[in-house]
Amino acid sequence: MLNIAIIGAGRIGHVHAGTVAAHPQANLALVCDPFGDAAEKLAAQYGARSCKEAEEVFADPEVDAVVVGSPTPLHIPHLLAAAKAGKAVLCEKPIALDMQDVEAARAELDAITTPVMFGFNRRFDPSFAAIHAAVQEGKIGVLEQLTIISRDPAAPPAEYIKVSGGIFRDMTIHDFDTARFFLGEIVEVHAVGQHLDPVIAETGDFDAAVVTLKAASGAVATIINNRHCASGYDQRLEASGRDGALLAENVRAHTVRLSNAEVTDAQEPYLDFFLERYADAYRLELSAFIEAVEAGTTPPTGIADAVAALRLAEAATESAHTGNPVRLA
Amino acid sequence: MLNIAIIGAGRIGHVHAGTVAAHPQANLALVCDPFGDAAEKLAAQYGARSCKEAEEVFADPEVDAVVVGSPTPLHIPHLLAAAKAGKAVLCEKPIALDMQDVEAARAELDAITTPVMFGFNRRFDPSFAAIHAAVQEGKIGVLEQLTIISRDPAAPPAEYIKVSGGIFRDMTIHDFDTARFFLGEIVEVHAVGQHLDPVIAETGDFDAAVVTLKAASGAVATIINNRHCASGYDQRLEASGRDGALLAENVRAHTVRLSNAEVTDAQEPYLDFFLERYADAYRLELSAFIEAVEAGTTPPTGIADAVAALRLAEAATESAHTGNPVRLA
Amino acid sequence: MLNIAIIGAGRIGHVHAGTVAAHPQANLALVCDPFGDAAEKLAAQYGARSCKEAEEVFADPEVDAVVVGSPTPLHIPHLLAAAKAGKAVLCEKPIALDMQDVEAARAELDAITTPVMFGFNRRFDPSFAAIHAAVQEGKIGVLEQLTIISRDPAAPPAEYIKVSGGIFRDMTIHDFDTARFFLGEIVEVHAVGQHLDPVIAETGDFDAAVVTLKAASGAVATIINNRHCASGYDQRLEASGRDGALLAENVRAHTVRLSNAEVTDAQEPYLDFFLERYADAYRLELSAFIEAVEAGTTPPTGIADAVAALRLAEAATESAHTGNPVRLA
Amino acid sequence: MLNIAIIGAGRIGHVHAGTVAAHPQANLALVCDPFGDAAEKLAAQYGARSCKEAEEVFADPEVDAVVVGSPTPLHIPHLLAAAKAGKAVLCEKPIALDMQDVEAARAELDAITTPVMFGFNRRFDPSFAAIHAAVQEGKIGVLEQLTIISRDPAAPPAEYIKVSGGIFRDMTIHDFDTARFFLGEIVEVHAVGQHLDPVIAETGDFDAAVVTLKAASGAVATIINNRHCASGYDQRLEASGRDGALLAENVRAHTVRLSNAEVTDAQEPYLDFFLERYADAYRLELSAFIEAVEAGTTPPTGIADAVAALRLAEAATESAHTGNPVRLA
Repeated sequence: MLNIAIIGAGRIGHVHAGTVAAHPQANLALVCDPFGDAAEKLAAQYGARSCKEAEEVFADPEVDAVVVGSPTPLHIPHLLAAAKAGKAVLCEKPIALDMQDVEAARAELDAITTPVMFGFNRRFDPSFAAIHAAVQEGKIGVLEQLTIISRDPAAPPAEYIKVSGGIFRDMTIHDFDTARFFLGEIVEVHAVGQHLDPVIAETGDFDAAVVTLKAASGAVATIINNRHCASGYDQRLEASGRDGALLAENVRAHTVRLSNAEVTDAQEPYLDFFLERYADAYRLELSAFIEAVEAGTTPPTGIADAVAALRLAEAATESAHTGNPVRLA
Repeated sequence: MLNIAIIGAGRIGHVHAGTVAAHPQANLALVCDPFGDAAEKLAAQYGARSCKEAEEVFADPEVDAVVVGSPTPLHIPHLLAAAKAGKAVLCEKPIALDMQDVEAARAELDAITTPVMFGFNRRFDPSFAAIHAAVQEGKIGVLEQLTIISRDPAAPPAEYIKVSGGIFRDMTIHDFDTARFFLGEIVEVHAVGQHLDPVIAETGDFDAAVVTLKAASGAVATIINNRHCASGYDQRLEASGRDGALLAENVRAHTVRLSNAEVTDAQEPYLDFFLERYADAYRLELSAFIEAVEAGTTPPTGIADAVAALRLAEAATESAHTGNPVRLA
Repeated sequence: MLNIAIIGAGRIGHVHAGTVAAHPQANLALVCDPFGDAAEKLAAQYGARSCKEAEEVFADPEVDAVVVGSPTPLHIPHLLAAAKAGKAVLCEKPIALDMQDVEAARAELDAITTPVMFGFNRRFDPSFAAIHAAVQEGKIGVLEQLTIISRDPAAPPAEYIKVSGGIFRDMTIHDFDTARFFLGEIVEVHAVGQHLDPVIAETGDFDAAVVTLKAASGAVATIINNRHCASGYDQRLEASGRDGALLAENVRAHTVRLSNAEVTDAQEPYLDFFLERYADAYRLELSAFIEAVEAGTTPPTGIADAVAALRLAEAATESAHTGNPVRLA
Repeated sequence: MLNIAIIGAGRIGHVHAGTVAAHPQANLALVCDPFGDAAEKLAAQYGARSCKEAEEVFADPEVDAVVVGSPTPLHIPHLLAAAKAGKAVLCEKPIALDMQDVEAARAELDAITTPVMFGFNRRFDPSFAAIHAAVQEGKIGVLEQLTIISRDPAAPPAEYIKVSGGIFRDMTIHDFDTARFFLGEIVEVHAVGQHLDPVIAETGDFDAAVVTLKAASGAVATIINNRHCASGYDQRLEASGRDGALLAENVRAHTVRLSNAEVTDAQEPYLDFFLERYADAYRLELSAFIEAVEAGTTPPTGIADAVAALRLAEAATESAHTGNPVRLA
């Protein structure tokens, strides 16, 4: 039985708490949040303890593993402190926005043997994971082309965008990891950025982009991003191989199709937003973490994945600004 | 090369004329219509001759085969005259509305060896035909349940309904033939009629119905009819077998799907109406006729099919009025 | 905060326990099962107490509400004892197999004011519920025809079928409730039973059926059942109204579509079986119960619904055996 | 009535002949092919005359319009000769493989007023045309991103590829025209070529590619090409706008969906190949030509479109070889 502490009692903390409580190999031991009321309320729902200071988590001998769901700037400090205290760690993405900080953290983590996993939850999405498994099993032959369509329902406020690190670090980062998950090493990045919304354009950031990734294998991935999508959270992926193709369609809350004099087989808008669309992915991600720690195996994503995705984001940013492709070492 | 005459230069005559002209084994020789202008115009488009009197068709030595597309009351006279003149005949459905007339025609036809085929065009619909072929090949194992959904876009005028022979003879007749095409001999019929539109109710006819057919094989077919469907001409069929199922979806003019803030993957209304929805079926039906005549084989539908479908219509009418099932001999 | 006890620590008990634990207005207080280990283990996962005797549940002053998930023959005793002890009750279906027992229970319940709800979980399925809500809002105009397709993935053992009460009481009972949910009062039932599997035929029961229900409103419902479906648990519903139609498609574990040289857009088999397919329905059903009890409102399903569904099952059984329709008072 | 001659009695000649014959405003006057038998046979089917020499077509006073379906190297000579003889011309694509030849032809055409149209048939595909019309009508708001997926079922022989002008001039040329049809002026092209099939790699040509096009409007188009697709001729298009999106799905021969123990809702492979997939497009293209000539209006595609598409092909070829984007004037 793995005793787990959760740092951060916000919406994602609630999601993780429910997963831990329902998992036969895990126990929710502690919920930590500087807003003590939030921590207490969430802890009470599942019969756990609560605290306000992260240091209490690291010092707690009963805690075996920590889920770091604090704000992004605290990810590296919390992650390192927990790992140094000998706790297994699942850290939410993005690990950080600055590559130097990440490289420094990586150097420290290299000296620590406790299992550390990063929250690239889309690898655990049932549809994407099923496609990945089928590709690995050779169901569609050699993978030739990957298409990732990823559009958010609506852009965050310009204030957030200013500190987000830009569309590639903030939004495309997930798609970069997905591309690596399917294609392995990427050797060239070309990005086109779009200024569609003048309010976002004023922040200097793009609000839409098309990224082309060449893999060492010869396969090519295309990522199509937009901060805005009228129909909801548009998340599709198509893997096209020599012998077939696998397409993950969008997810909706139910299967109803409406037909009337104007339309037929109309479905409702896509699940909106990530906590809903990727609810299963969050659950399966945390289960994978629990099972890896309990079994003593390496968690499925590590610091190297966090570094690689951030590097692709930096290359895409450069390409979108210069107009030229960026070759990676 | 089969020289074909078409009686009736209306919409269905135009459909058949195009098929004949494009068929490598057939030649459009003659178009006949009491409205001479219509016959002349259609004939001109494909370089054929035209006439106003059906008798000219039957007497024309150049004509090998006749497509009877005249009004229903003339079907039997034209069919018999053409057959007696030694022409092969494709007769549009319904052969007639009265079982006695049909039985009399059958007796006459039994003495004639010229090929006569009846226009149960849905057997030739690419989707229904593909399902039928797959069932025959055993792709879904023993056929257990058949579901036919057949809804017209809008009811015809009450004046037409009064002389139509009623919903079962006029509309369900196609579905009865489809059920026979898939299930063979039917041994029991139960029908529920509905009075949804008060204008039609006044004519004494039902405007919607659900029919259950028990086949000798133990399979059961369900037919769901409605004279009205807001989304267009709703024509679906599902064959459910021990090892799988085959579903024919509705047909639309194109494959476009619209997504916006209200709906996703919305398609346009169904193809409306039968000449559009069953355009391929009419073409393939006439091709099958041409090929059977040229090859000297028996056409795929005969007078026995016309009789059997009409008998089911009579049984359904009785059942819907009495509320009790009707057992067939 | 509603303190809930669950009687029965089997698979459905696990489902309900997770719902209670995650619900902000409810607390899992007690799990009861004659197999004490099962009760203890489930209780431990959510920090609840456990017991072996149902009497302890009824006598426990901390327990506000009871979920009766015991075997069918114990439903009425447990339900009545809990209600008499002043507990709110959610009773799994079927309430019983014998109409006399149900009528007797109804008489006793009529004298008790504690809220009692019955587990017709499909009313809470997100797709069926969305269609029902849209119909109520007039989105498709007057409801004219309802089609329910409900096929189990595989028949239970013949031993179970012998004591099941027959296909209509055991399997169609859910569809009868769904038909009532949409159409209200039913005035006529016609059923055709099929003997497809010789092993089941030997038990005297049908293993497939087509039922036609006439509603007082003039609408007609068709239920198509089969104990076997090669593709999984086939659960579809289509409501067809004057101005449009709403179709609930089958549910699958993910949205992946495979295309290769043989097939395109192929999806995986349907979710199999009811705990998976109706997982959301069970969760939403229990939430509705919790919210009704907390708010002091009448639960959405009551003993009258249980009685009405069983009455339809009895009528369908009679019709399938006699071949004649059964009119209801 | 427009009297039309067709040069080329191959498969595409047969398609056009059927369209002309069935068109109420057109008459098939003459079929020309150096293989006289082919010309004669096709002409006979529709009651037209035939000839072996193209010069006879240009000199024929009865001929109002010419469909140029000869091999690519003869397109410009036939096109110019017909236009100089005062005939309206519909010229099949590609007009030529060499930009200098095309510019020279353009200069000559500029001095001629007879209507000349080029066979960018996909603009007339019912699905693509419906999306284009909806975009023009503002149904999805400002167009932001266009995705074109275009994969052939199987690569042509290496011998053909050697003289094809390369994938961008031979295959992507259609998609370039489609991109211009939707987005107007293109200002930057970036292309990644792939060598997936070693036999094609030996010819020096790519057999798959991903092209990114920036439009002057700020919109971006992505073209994903492959010479091979296991599932057939994969032709999809998605227009994504500020207020919605429109997707054209693949086309199949019928609507049947198969479900069994392995798959559900499986459809058959895509229509294979272009004459089948774009049959309606060819028919509607020729109708548009006939109607423009009869009405005296400018045909919907002209030499400028042929030039622009070829220019994009040249830019893409350069980009794929250098790895750098190409800016257009």
